[in-house]
Amino acid sequence: MGMTISQKILARHAGRKMLEPGELINCQLDLVLGNDVTAPVAIAEFKKLGIDKVYDQSRVVLVPDHFTPNKDIKSAEQCKILRDFARQYEIENYFEIGQMGIEHCLLPEQGLVVPGDLIIGADSHTCTYGALGAFATGVGSTDMAAGMATGEAWFKVPESIKFVYYGHLPRWVGGKDLILHTIGDIGVDGARYMSMEFTGEVIQNLSMDNRFTMANMAIEAGGKNGIFAADEITLDYVKKRVKRPFELYQSDPDAVYFDIKEYDVSKLEPVVAFPHLPENTRPVTEATHVSLDQVVIGSCTNGRIEDMEITASLLKGQKVHPEIRVIIFPGTREIYLEALRRGYIETFIEAGAVVSTPTCGPCLGGHMGILARGEKALATTNRNFVGRMGHPESEVYLASPAVAAASAVKGRITAPWEL
Amino acid sequence: MGMTISQKILARHAGRKMLEPGELINCQLDLVLGNDVTAPVAIAEFKKLGIDKVYDQSRVVLVPDHFTPNKDIKSAEQCKILRDFARQYEIENYFEIGQMGIEHCLLPEQGLVVPGDLIIGADSHTCTYGALGAFATGVGSTDMAAGMATGEAWFKVPESIKFVYYGHLPRWVGGKDLILHTIGDIGVDGARYMSMEFTGEVIQNLSMDNRFTMANMAIEAGGKNGIFAADEITLDYVKKRVKRPFELYQSDPDAVYFDIKEYDVSKLEPVVAFPHLPENTRPVTEATHVSLDQVVIGSCTNGRIEDMEITASLLKGQKVHPEIRVIIFPGTREIYLEALRRGYIETFIEAGAVVSTPTCGPCLGGHMGILARGEKALATTNRNFVGRMGHPESEVYLASPAVAAASAVKGRITAPWEL
Repeated sequence: MGMTISQKILARHAGRKMLEPGELINCQLDLVLGNDVTAPVAIAEFKKLGIDKVYDQSRVVLVPDHFTPNKDIKSAEQCKILRDFARQYEIENYFEIGQMGIEHCLLPEQGLVVPGDLIIGADSHTCTYGALGAFATGVGSTDMAAGMATGEAWFKVPESIKFVYYGHLPRWVGGKDLILHTIGDIGVDGARYMSMEFTGEVIQNLSMDNRFTMANMAIEAGGKNGIFAADEITLDYVKKRVKRPFELYQSDPDAVYFDIKEYDVSKLEPVVAFPHLPENTRPVTEATHVSLDQVVIGSCTNGRIEDMEITASLLKGQKVHPEIRVIIFPGTREIYLEALRRGYIETFIEAGAVVSTPTCGPCLGGHMGILARGEKALATTNRNFVGRMGHPESEVYLASPAVAAASAVKGRITAPWEL
Repeated sequence: MGMTISQKILARHAGRKMLEPGELINCQLDLVLGNDVTAPVAIAEFKKLGIDKVYDQSRVVLVPDHFTPNKDIKSAEQCKILRDFARQYEIENYFEIGQMGIEHCLLPEQGLVVPGDLIIGADSHTCTYGALGAFATGVGSTDMAAGMATGEAWFKVPESIKFVYYGHLPRWVGGKDLILHTIGDIGVDGARYMSMEFTGEVIQNLSMDNRFTMANMAIEAGGKNGIFAADEITLDYVKKRVKRPFELYQSDPDAVYFDIKEYDVSKLEPVVAFPHLPENTRPVTEATHVSLDQVVIGSCTNGRIEDMEITASLLKGQKVHPEIRVIIFPGTREIYLEALRRGYIETFIEAGAVVSTPTCGPCLGGHMGILARGEKALATTNRNFVGRMGHPESEVYLASPAVAAASAVKGRITAPWEL
C-alpha cells in the first residue's frame, strides 16, 4: 500500500518506513514556533521542566506578532517574556518588531521552512507551511513547551483527502477563492484531523503566494494540515532562501485517500464567505448588496506581495469610499519594502487607505481596526466567527484581495470587474 | 497701556478694544475641536441641549486620532459616536483614518487655522496652533459642547510671559530643545494660566515645524497658550493652505508682561527630560548612560516633515540597535506621503524601524508601543509622567528627533554627533 506525502513526512520523522492512518507515533521536529499569545504559556511550562536549554537554538522560532507593537501593558509584558527568554536561551530566531512580520509570512520568507519538514507551531495557522511541501500543524502551548525541550512530539497519523482542481482559472479568481469554495463545499469540519492534499492542473500552475493562502486555511475545514507536492514553483521559491538540505516527497500512485474531491474551476466566481463561518460561501455577485464599514487587506492568509500587487492594481488612481476605513497590512518587513519600492504603498496612501506595520492586528480582534456594534467588514483574513474582529454584533465577510480592493472603492461588496 | 498678541486676539473676539489680565470675557470662536477621547463626552452633553445643529458646520472639527485605527471595542464605539455625529450634523471637517492624521499636525496643514484665530479644542495640546499666531487652548469636553452649540466660550484674560531667545543656535539644537530648556528653567507650572510669547532673533529664524513643537509644549509649563507673532515664515506656510481671510497681530511695544525670560542659546546642547516630568532636563551629554528598550519618533510634538527629515538623515545606512524597538509615526497622511516620496520611509524600514500610520499611539499610553514593567523609552513626545507610555514602573525620556534617531542606533541615549 502506498503512502501520501503527509504520511511519508511523518514516517521519516518517526524513523519508520511505513505507517498507517490512526497510528500513534513520536516524531523528531524540524521547527517549533510560538508567538506573543502562546509562547509565554509555553515558556512557563518549559521552565517547570528545570532544564537549561532548548533542544536546538536554531530550531525554536519566536515571533511577537499578535498584539504588537505592544497594544497595552498586558501585551507588553507578554512580549517581554518572549524577548527575555530569547536572550537567556540564545534563541537564534527571535524576530523583533521592525525586523520581522507575521509569523506565517515570515518563516518561509526567511528560509526557515524547507520541503519535507515536520513543524509544530502554537498557532492554528501553522498549517500555512504545507504550501512548501512541509507537514506543519498547530498545537497547544504545552506541546510547544515539550517540543522546545525535547525536539519531539506525538502525532496520530491522519487520513488524507485529495482535492483535485481542474479547468481554466478565470480572471480575478485565485487561491483564496479556491480554498473558500472548498470549505464551502465540505464545511468547517469537513476535513477534521485529516491531511488536505491540494492537487490538479490548476494547482500545478498556481503561484507560491496563492498556495500559501490555500494551505493557511486548511484549519478552517478542520484539517490537521494542508499540503502541496513540492515542484519547480516551490524550488524557485526555496532555493533563494533556505540554508538546510531538504527532500522532496510525492504521494504514491497507490496511496489510499479517505476521499477525493474534484472541482472544475472554469466557472468559479470570486467567493465571499458570509458571517459567521468560512463555510457560508456565495459567489461575489450574490453579495454585492452588502454595504461595509471597513475593509482589511493583509494577514497571514493574504498579506504577501502578490496580494499587495493585485490590491495596488485596483486602487491605483482610485479613492477609497469616504464612508469606510481601509486598512492594509503587508505581511512582513520584506513585503512592505518590496511594495514600497514598487510604488504600491504610495498608491494605497494616495487612495486613502491606512497602511500598517506588519501585525496580526484586527484579524483576531487584537487591535488596529476593531469593529463597533453593528459594523460590517470585508477582510482577506481567515476567520469570520462571531466577534472575531470586535463587537459580538459586528460582521466579517471573507474574500480575496481583489474583491477587497474593489469593495474598498465602492463601499459595498464589489466584484473586481465592476471597477 | 499696550496689549500683547494674546490680549489683542481675545479682545477682537470679545468685541472689545481693550482688556486687561484677569477680566472675564465671552468670546466668539473660530474653531471648536474634539477627538475620539473627548468628543464623545462633548457630543453627549451637546445632545442634552436639544438643538438640531452646531453653530457652524465648517468650524467644528472632529479627528479620531487617539485610539485609532480602533484599538478595541470600546475605542471602536467611541469613534462610531464621532462618525455618526459628523454624518448626522453634516460636520464638514471630520477626518477619517487613512484620510487624516494627528489633530495638531492636521489642522494647520489642512488650512483650518489662520493667524489671529481663537480656537478651543478638547485636547490639552490645542496650544500648538499658537505657532501660527492664533490663540489656541485646551478645554474640557463640556466647554467643547457649549462651543459647538453657541460658537462662544468664556475666558479669563491671561497674563503674558515673554521668552526671548538670542544667540546662534548650535547644530543639532532645535525647537524641542528650546522648549525643554525653557520648561526646565521655569518648571511645569512656571507659566500657569499665562500666555507664553516666544520671541527673539532665534525665533525669527526658526522654521514653522520647530515653532509648532515649541507652541505644542506650552501646556507642559502650565501655559494657557503659547504664541508666536506671525511673520514671513508664517505667511509662507499659511498662504498655500488657508481659504479664510486673516489678520496679523504684534504685541505693542508698551505691552505689559508678567515676566520676561531671556536665553542665550549659543551654548545650548540637545536637551533630555528625565522621568517623570518635562522639567527634569539635562544636557544630552549627561544622559548617555541611559540604556533604552524603545525609541518613539513622532506625535503632535515632533511628527512633522522636518522631524522625519532629520530622523532619516541620521538613520540612513544605519541599523537600529538589535535590542530595542523603534517606532516612527508621521503626523499626517500628507507628511507620510511626502516622507515616502523623499525616500525616508524606505530608510526607516531598511534600518529596522516600525513605521506606523498616523495615530497618537504610545504617546499617551494608548496603543502601538506600550511599555512593560521596568522598560525605558526615549520619545519625541511631550509628556513623561509616571505610566504615561505604559506600566507605572516604566520610564520615558523626552528629546528631539535628532537625539531619538541617534539613540535608536546605539540603544542608549546618544548625542547626534556620536553617530
